[in-house]
Amino acid sequence: MENCIFCKIIKGEIPYNKVYEDEKILAFLDINPVNYGHVLVIPKKHFQWFYEVPDKILSYLTIKSKDIVIALKKTLKPDYVALSVVGLDVPHFHLHLIPRWKNDGMDNFWPTKKYKDNEEKEYAEKIRKEID
Amino acid sequence: MENCIFCKIIKGEIPYNKVYEDEKILAFLDINPVNYGHVLVIPKKHFQWFYEVPDKILSYLTIKSKDIVIALKKTLKPDYVALSVVGLDVPHFHLHLIPRWKNDGMDNFWPTKKYKDNEEKEYAEKIRKEID
Repeated sequence: MENCIFCKIIKGEIPYNKVYEDEKILAFLDINPVNYGHVLVIPKKHFQWFYEVPDKILSYLTIKSKDIVIALKKTLKPDYVALSVVGLDVPHFHLHLIPRWKNDGMDNFWPTKKYKDNEEKEYAEKIRKEID
Repeated sequence: MENCIFCKIIKGEIPYNKVYEDEKILAFLDINPVNYGHVLVIPKKHFQWFYEVPDKILSYLTIKSKDIVIALKKTLKPDYVALSVVGLDVPHFHLHLIPRWKNDGMDNFWPTKKYKDNEEKEYAEKIRKEID
């Protein structure tokens, strides 16, 4: 897709630091890492949203990401590796793999809410109905 | 697994609000939602880490999560749905599906770093070597 920065990276029009590549996916370092070794995994074909990525590609990308997570663990020895998909920044689906340490100061970043009364049941019902 | 709260949920020993269930996976509302409608998707078999989930189950869970994300979009009309895997809280692999709104006050929660000099290339090389 024209003007998509990740499509430009795939085409080699923008420099990047490759971690893994094959015919279907590309993995490279995020230039603004949350922690050093923060990797982005993208399909070579352009899709914006998670749910738009075809099953076959999504499945392949997810399974291959296990190998990358294992490599991150071996080389950087983080306490764990967080996975994250956001989607508003670059409109080309990308999975963040972020090496995390217990003392890296990024805990409790998302405040949580509480459901009131019957709200939780109502939410679950509403969503469930759309899946069935 | 004994003493795993999610295994207890699967066995029906703890109340929860179901969003989807089949023979392989279970999806239910997080009782401490980041936003209302925050869903957790788990494999019925116990695995702690992302990279420990067998390919077949991981692939199935990921693909099925697309349907749940689409249901969240239809019912709650969020601007997008964030996906996240952390892993330190409950030691049973779970994928967070979080309906997000642009003005929900949770942006820029993760500060980012910059690589110095040759550091980025060195990190990429180190990780790449472990994957090949």
